[in-house]
Amino acid sequence: MKSTVFFKNMPAIIATSTICGPKEGQGNLGEYIETRLQDDTFGEKTYEKAERKMLSHVINKSVQNANLRLCDVDCLISGDLLNQIISSSFSAREFDIPYLGVYNACSTMSEALAISAVLVDGGYMSTTVSATGSHFSTAERQYRYPLELGSVRPPQAQWTVTGAGSAVISSKSGFYPRITSATIGKVTDFGVTDVNNMGAAMAPAAFRSIYNHLKDTNRKPSYYDLILTGDLGALGSRLLKHLAKEKGVDIDNNHVDCGEMIYNIDEEEYQGGSGAGCSAVVFNSYIYTKMRQKKFNKVLFVATGALLSTVSSQQGETIPAIAHAISIENGVV
Amino acid sequence: MKSTVFFKNMPAIIATSTICGPKEGQGNLGEYIETRLQDDTFGEKTYEKAERKMLSHVINKSVQNANLRLCDVDCLISGDLLNQIISSSFSAREFDIPYLGVYNACSTMSEALAISAVLVDGGYMSTTVSATGSHFSTAERQYRYPLELGSVRPPQAQWTVTGAGSAVISSKSGFYPRITSATIGKVTDFGVTDVNNMGAAMAPAAFRSIYNHLKDTNRKPSYYDLILTGDLGALGSRLLKHLAKEKGVDIDNNHVDCGEMIYNIDEEEYQGGSGAGCSAVVFNSYIYTKMRQKKFNKVLFVATGALLSTVSSQQGETIPAIAHAISIENGVV
Repeated sequence: MKSTVFFKNMPAIIATSTICGPKEGQGNLGEYIETRLQDDTFGEKTYEKAERKMLSHVINKSVQNANLRLCDVDCLISGDLLNQIISSSFSAREFDIPYLGVYNACSTMSEALAISAVLVDGGYMSTTVSATGSHFSTAERQYRYPLELGSVRPPQAQWTVTGAGSAVISSKSGFYPRITSATIGKVTDFGVTDVNNMGAAMAPAAFRSIYNHLKDTNRKPSYYDLILTGDLGALGSRLLKHLAKEKGVDIDNNHVDCGEMIYNIDEEEYQGGSGAGCSAVVFNSYIYTKMRQKKFNKVLFVATGALLSTVSSQQGETIPAIAHAISIENGVV
Repeated sequence: MKSTVFFKNMPAIIATSTICGPKEGQGNLGEYIETRLQDDTFGEKTYEKAERKMLSHVINKSVQNANLRLCDVDCLISGDLLNQIISSSFSAREFDIPYLGVYNACSTMSEALAISAVLVDGGYMSTTVSATGSHFSTAERQYRYPLELGSVRPPQAQWTVTGAGSAVISSKSGFYPRITSATIGKVTDFGVTDVNNMGAAMAPAAFRSIYNHLKDTNRKPSYYDLILTGDLGALGSRLLKHLAKEKGVDIDNNHVDCGEMIYNIDEEEYQGGSGAGCSAVVFNSYIYTKMRQKKFNKVLFVATGALLSTVSSQQGETIPAIAHAISIENGVV
């Protein structure tokens, strides 16, 4: 059984939009991020409302960047980390657009791209928007501790990205990065229980999807300019490379991780970025820009998600993870 | 812009499976529900684990009922009401099957059917499973109060169904109920803030999708044997009929609601069933059986979802809602 679906019409990513908080704006990729906030409340009374406003902002902007109007969009596919994905659903309330809510934790960006690609490739829709985001301050208080506690982070922890990204997927012809196939992830659990070590929990899921993708497409890792994971962080990325090498797959030369790229990280402090916004911001800003410039031409985008909740951890469960691998290529139509 | 996607290959629902708790088993449709539990813990230590076990149970059973093996399934599309949809993701961990997590609250069953239909109709996959469920005791303690408080329910409240349902969608030929089109819902908010009155919050979303469906397909309500909403309950159903009549759409003769059907309700006590499991159990048991028996031949399945969270309500938000309308017809291939 193959895990990969192939898109013969190769839907185009015709535009993107990104937004981020102050910390992300000062990171390595700040100059590529369309809107950099000075104030992570975005003028709202709560962080949850700020997260939602960021998401609505990039959905709107990505449609503008595609020179389209909202009424040209056939469907919005979106999800986020908040309970009952309220950022996405309340964003969707602002738009008169059919809406499919999705959730695969921090792999939501690649899940949403896969569903968009199927809808557009199959001729069911002409234009869809895939979007997600996260906010450090909403994630901390929902998943961990109230910010006011000033909890000390262990060094294996990551930092939830404050930011959002949106991509417009279209049946349009022309030169664009195009989605050529998608390998749908399987839930993978290696028994990690440390909720501060998501990278370790997610690395096996990332490897499994990369492995399945390469097998299903009969490709070698070197086919891709980049094998871009979502938010493994520095430690998780090392684990992924180690796992891959053990299985005879060498990704050392082209693997990079969005979580490692977004901040100027000091591993004694934390392992890099995480959150649904991490891969959404990095992919839709820096990576997309470089693909449009033909600096990168073949990217395997493997956003990674840890599928736990506070309740599952409290009830003694380990952390299952998932990753969806989306093949995005220039010059294929 | 149309909200409806049409399926030219009309994917078949080749099998289903359902499970329910003791209260549901004693309800009107008990005899149609495949597995009726005597103990709503299903032998597990927590209600969350019981909810998950119910979901895994119906996924497994539906595949068996289709005379397939799990390795024949190309994708599992599932979601549920628990934070981070842990019932679905932890169920998916048990299966070596690609997984797409979805969330549109109690409209998740119709959302999952729509995505399955697109994947199978487009030839991307041959066989998928769409499943969801809910549990009274997990929903109460997550969304409302600890059970131990013994809170009194206001009469406009509904009762979260303990149960799960799963459907196998396939490209197979033969006589089966088939998915002919899907109208993807738009988020609709009429300003209801009473979290005990989900029926009122969801009725406008249900009407909007029914209206859009009839317009896009150029059909009259009488085309359908049943226009089956998910969990409006008695009060919500009356509101839907009232809204429809106001807009010149008469659904009085063929509208029924899963939430009104599942229990022997006394409106002084509560308005009927709710929860993702409500429409999943009713559709995949009674309705599916009657379609196989050709008692019903054309059903518009409109599962309804309230997209709130406890945080959104605490922050003063109204309740947005959504409904996806899935046209399921006999004898079309």
